[in-house]
Amino acid sequence: MGKNKDKASANADADTKSKKRDDELTSSDKKKVADQASEKAAKAKAKAEKAPAKKKGSAKKASSKPATEAAKKAKKDEAVKAAKKVGKDKSTKKSKKKHKAQLSDFTSALKVTPGFSLADLDASSTPAFDGDQKKAEKLMRKTGEELADLQERLYASERHPDGRSVLLVVQGMDTSGKGGIMRHVIGSIDPQGVELTSFKAPTKEEQAHPFLWRIRNALPKPGYIGVFDRSQYEDVLIVRVHDLVSRPVWMRRYGQINAFEESTVAKNTTIIKVMLHIDADEQKARLAERLDNPEKFYKFNPGDLKERAYWPEYQDAYQAVLERTSTDIAPWFVVPANNKWYARLAVQQLLLEHLRSLDLTWPEATFDVEEQKAALAQL
Amino acid sequence: MGKNKDKASANADADTKSKKRDDELTSSDKKKVADQASEKAAKAKAKAEKAPAKKKGSAKKASSKPATEAAKKAKKDEAVKAAKKVGKDKSTKKSKKKHKAQLSDFTSALKVTPGFSLADLDASSTPAFDGDQKKAEKLMRKTGEELADLQERLYASERHPDGRSVLLVVQGMDTSGKGGIMRHVIGSIDPQGVELTSFKAPTKEEQAHPFLWRIRNALPKPGYIGVFDRSQYEDVLIVRVHDLVSRPVWMRRYGQINAFEESTVAKNTTIIKVMLHIDADEQKARLAERLDNPEKFYKFNPGDLKERAYWPEYQDAYQAVLERTSTDIAPWFVVPANNKWYARLAVQQLLLEHLRSLDLTWPEATFDVEEQKAALAQL
Repeated sequence: MGKNKDKASANADADTKSKKRDDELTSSDKKKVADQASEKAAKAKAKAEKAPAKKKGSAKKASSKPATEAAKKAKKDEAVKAAKKVGKDKSTKKSKKKHKAQLSDFTSALKVTPGFSLADLDASSTPAFDGDQKKAEKLMRKTGEELADLQERLYASERHPDGRSVLLVVQGMDTSGKGGIMRHVIGSIDPQGVELTSFKAPTKEEQAHPFLWRIRNALPKPGYIGVFDRSQYEDVLIVRVHDLVSRPVWMRRYGQINAFEESTVAKNTTIIKVMLHIDADEQKARLAERLDNPEKFYKFNPGDLKERAYWPEYQDAYQAVLERTSTDIAPWFVVPANNKWYARLAVQQLLLEHLRSLDLTWPEATFDVEEQKAALAQL
Repeated sequence: MGKNKDKASANADADTKSKKRDDELTSSDKKKVADQASEKAAKAKAKAEKAPAKKKGSAKKASSKPATEAAKKAKKDEAVKAAKKVGKDKSTKKSKKKHKAQLSDFTSALKVTPGFSLADLDASSTPAFDGDQKKAEKLMRKTGEELADLQERLYASERHPDGRSVLLVVQGMDTSGKGGIMRHVIGSIDPQGVELTSFKAPTKEEQAHPFLWRIRNALPKPGYIGVFDRSQYEDVLIVRVHDLVSRPVWMRRYGQINAFEESTVAKNTTIIKVMLHIDADEQKARLAERLDNPEKFYKFNPGDLKERAYWPEYQDAYQAVLERTSTDIAPWFVVPANNKWYARLAVQQLLLEHLRSLDLTWPEATFDVEEQKAALAQL
């Protein structure tokens, strides 16, 4: 036991360290929030419209939206404050409404649209959210309940003729936090309704089939949330970077993937494609952390450094993926992931917003309820 | 959203209801605890030894052990109180030590040994634990951290030549709470390290193979915790009750299962077999609950009532399973499950105690750490 304990506290230290680092990374964001809070809501919109111009060039696209959202939120905050003066009961209701409205925009803030440039996205930004780590974690706990409710409705619809399913695809460079998403976001969902697949280097059997074969085999059944930790996109990422197949072959794959996703969506599967975006410095820090902590050695592989040497080629390959496969029916969402806590919140909210949009209802009874009650009473 | 909200609060009401019922079910246990608390620790052991005689005949085996455990705990409580007087730092350490000791006996308290009689086990008892629901949930949260740590060590050992795995088999009558175990116990573990399989009525493909075929296919890989929601035991439970195969065929299966489990254990898999034990009244109440709540209709099947009519036959079939397949290398644990909160705590603790016994260490680095650090610094 003693040994376990020591390790546990070493773990806790490591967590504290990484949390501290997260905090440092967002100190500028925090300042922004504090500044905004001290201003009147009436001025917020005007300020938000000016904000993008003030920002450094590397955060154009993604950060203009959150700024607008922040303004909207500030306005609503004022409305809530006013409502609170009216009466407690009313204010509670409005506050809850606001709370949801505030959280309903990750989908639009993070969606990849034509003209998107990965190189211009600040990996430390926090689109659609202006809180800190503590607030993010609190929100995750709160919205976890709604997520659980929606997941159960999805699961309950399993046997329906038009049973729906959801597929969450998670991609990102080494150390971008895919494992943390699995542990903290997917881990908060009832495991009975989740089908998680981690795609590694293809086996001999998989290599003997077309590249989408193993992907098709792992698609979620009706009622389930399928989660891909890496995916079909490795076949146009690592494969492209290292020329594992010829250029004409991987070039064809973008279209093949789009066609595959179109047929998957046609079978009532909602696809959410997420790229966790970290920058090169962040990866360096995270790799160093793994080499500093014997409990993280198992996560490290000398091959990781070899891959890191191809950083620019991977960024180009990701940019091509985002340009060629962000479709109307299955768009990409790029999540700035230097802050692990933000990435987790964002993926949870993307999942939540998509589940909400399915408008899931509880299935009707397939039996005569009163008849069954009477039968039970006699047993 | 409004709709979701209503449903969410309806859910909450249902939870409250079921919690209330849980409380009622254990009111006698609670009283017992209160009584014990008011006595001196010095008298506790003597009292515990007398206790079985006072109890109704239906709670012989399982409840005699917890009573002894309660006495041990009471003794330790006294020790902790004394330690607290000495100094805060010391008392914290001792308190933690005690906390673990108090929780290290579910394995022995619940293990099925020769002479075990299912009919004599009180499904409302709480062996090896004398707290209430609130205390159980608090303990679950606390020990969840150690469980997470141990699970990660297990996972980290994935590539080791003698990589270990764990298999948790969960059986029980309809409504015994298997789903709740999956959601609340397995759901608290990193999904990346869990392989959960729910065995339903065999498919045509499965039927074309020997009954253990689909079981073998679902065994956990090294480093993983495999979880079976129902299992090979259905082939000597529902199959026996309904004569789905001839008697000589299912009679042979006990031995086949034992041989299969022996070979599985020989390949470094730790098997934990759990039966969730409810009584017939509890099942009636839980079925009624499903018929009362439209959000639970999807869990109900008119076939459930047909199966309920075979209650005595199922109890006999379970008794035979416990007698014939509780082996030294893969014993059964029968968990009284009228109190859902107790069953969840017990299964979590069984998992924890078995993981502890594996004495898992973090794997050594398979590379030169300093060399890799130097290489990283240059990238």
